[in-house]
Amino acid sequence: MTEKTSYAAAGVDIAEGQRALDLMKQAVSATYTPEVLSETGSFGGLFDALSLFSSMSHPVLVASTDGVGTKTKVAARLDRWDTIGHDIVNHCIDDILVQGARPLFFLDYVATAHLDAGQIAAIVGGAATACCEAGCVLIGGETAEMPGVYAPGAVDLVGTIVGVVDHDQLITGETIQPGDAILALPAVGLHTNGFTLARSVLNDLDWQSPHSDLGQSIGEALLAIHPSYLKPVQSLRTAGVNVRGLAHITGGGVYDNLPRILPGGLGATIRRGTWPEPPIFDLIRQRGKIDPREMFHVFNMGLGMLVVVPPGDVSTAQSTLPGTVHLVGQIVDNQGIVEIQNLGKDS
Amino acid sequence: MTEKTSYAAAGVDIAEGQRALDLMKQAVSATYTPEVLSETGSFGGLFDALSLFSSMSHPVLVASTDGVGTKTKVAARLDRWDTIGHDIVNHCIDDILVQGARPLFFLDYVATAHLDAGQIAAIVGGAATACCEAGCVLIGGETAEMPGVYAPGAVDLVGTIVGVVDHDQLITGETIQPGDAILALPAVGLHTNGFTLARSVLNDLDWQSPHSDLGQSIGEALLAIHPSYLKPVQSLRTAGVNVRGLAHITGGGVYDNLPRILPGGLGATIRRGTWPEPPIFDLIRQRGKIDPREMFHVFNMGLGMLVVVPPGDVSTAQSTLPGTVHLVGQIVDNQGIVEIQNLGKDS
Repeated sequence: MTEKTSYAAAGVDIAEGQRALDLMKQAVSATYTPEVLSETGSFGGLFDALSLFSSMSHPVLVASTDGVGTKTKVAARLDRWDTIGHDIVNHCIDDILVQGARPLFFLDYVATAHLDAGQIAAIVGGAATACCEAGCVLIGGETAEMPGVYAPGAVDLVGTIVGVVDHDQLITGETIQPGDAILALPAVGLHTNGFTLARSVLNDLDWQSPHSDLGQSIGEALLAIHPSYLKPVQSLRTAGVNVRGLAHITGGGVYDNLPRILPGGLGATIRRGTWPEPPIFDLIRQRGKIDPREMFHVFNMGLGMLVVVPPGDVSTAQSTLPGTVHLVGQIVDNQGIVEIQNLGKDS
Repeated sequence: MTEKTSYAAAGVDIAEGQRALDLMKQAVSATYTPEVLSETGSFGGLFDALSLFSSMSHPVLVASTDGVGTKTKVAARLDRWDTIGHDIVNHCIDDILVQGARPLFFLDYVATAHLDAGQIAAIVGGAATACCEAGCVLIGGETAEMPGVYAPGAVDLVGTIVGVVDHDQLITGETIQPGDAILALPAVGLHTNGFTLARSVLNDLDWQSPHSDLGQSIGEALLAIHPSYLKPVQSLRTAGVNVRGLAHITGGGVYDNLPRILPGGLGATIRRGTWPEPPIFDLIRQRGKIDPREMFHVFNMGLGMLVVVPPGDVSTAQSTLPGTVHLVGQIVDNQGIVEIQNLGKDS
């Protein structure tokens, strides 16, 4: 009798991976459009581009990859796995929306120390639902089991999206001028950024019971799903609003993300108090005694997507999306610097 | 005096992330072709598809995502970070090559518990070099620092590729017939699969000194770079070889990967001994007392890419790529089952 080593004994369970695939297959197939020429489990996902490209004069593909960061640790603490798939899809949609693109297809990557088929299927099922809502195909993905790379119980979730925009519809920010208005489409919470800091600050609190400042539990506030801004932005453009620039406020906050779309020499003034801030941010600030400037450097602070438009288009934008478009600032000559007024005192 | 929390104190160093970006910028830009309309650091990467699609009658996009698995643990043990970027790019190229596609662009994702800018830049630099060799643009990527998700010192590396194939050049396997020949393009080592098992078996050995059975150190043998089969396969097609099917032998080995391209009812017979097996596999088998069938289920065992061709095309294939095309088996009527002859006794 000799002792034998097998892949399962070394910590990788191929059968559990197959079970996860079987569980998620139906949700993934539900995202398929007639453009999909492959089946789940193919080496690569096939997307027929003929009708798409014959309907555009100058197609530009737009691609982006990102993860949900340590929001997976929040999901793990609450043992709730159906929301973070929505987060990563919508995050990716918003990243390419910034350049005017609509999504074509998405690929997910889920990795963990030890596969749990039900957990993986819940994550990918959430991603599939978000894809369906956006008319985006979940064309491929990968599930990986990596003991020794991931901490026990930890999960990483990464997404890659490919979209398309006709060249004359590209949004680049290059026509942004001083005096342009900065509108905000509101955030619902942290979205997919700042969770390491938020968790470190809120770790000792009760995440399950309703919290008086939040109107919901801390867990619910932290898991609030990153919205897709695809439809609101499409509505603005359809209504004739001249969208000169879009900035998705993610890691680095408004300080780092708004300058990414500003032509050389331009900056921005943002007036705090002109948009609603989800109360979870003030809870984090108070508990962590965090400098307000640091808060705006790490979190979106309620500014989900910034939309730069000529001042004359503000009223059209506000009447197109009543109650959800906030005039939060304007473009100024200021060397790429974002200045926030009414920032508040250092606590 | 109050104690304040900052993002850096919570374990995320935004400045180190920026330093990594600065270090990798030049290598990434070197992959750019005139099709790239964006700069590094854009929300999404822009790929101009006009000339591409005007030159094809029926373009099909092919997308795939995958990781290098725990090969990153080998890189960490050897503190060698320049090779795994090549691995993930070539792995992805080979996955979409199976359907006849050539690569357009690639996106990387590198995540770790604590960012080391030099390490990240070495990884992404390797990916950029592999992209250049394949004429593929490194159009985007993400670097994530996630303390608590990743084990200390551990790294995950994931890639997503998008390629294109004209519809009449798609390789689907559907014309494969009984009697067709199975050719192998050789593997150089484990490529990107089976590292959890290999590491567990080889862990106690010296990985630095030359090993008599290998002609190199265990570390070198394990890190051998996953080759791209793009050029060899293109050469075969250019020479008129009727490539009816391609199977990239990855996780699940030849048992799981070859059936993915076989029409219903067909199976395959592979004759062991007809191709060279890198000696690292026998070292793993001996040390781990691993069943030969399990070896073929986990590792490629030297079969890097299988090419299914009509029997009459074998000699053309072999004269096109002298010494590198091995006739290893044939297609048979056998219900999707791969049978390996001369498998060897259970050790």
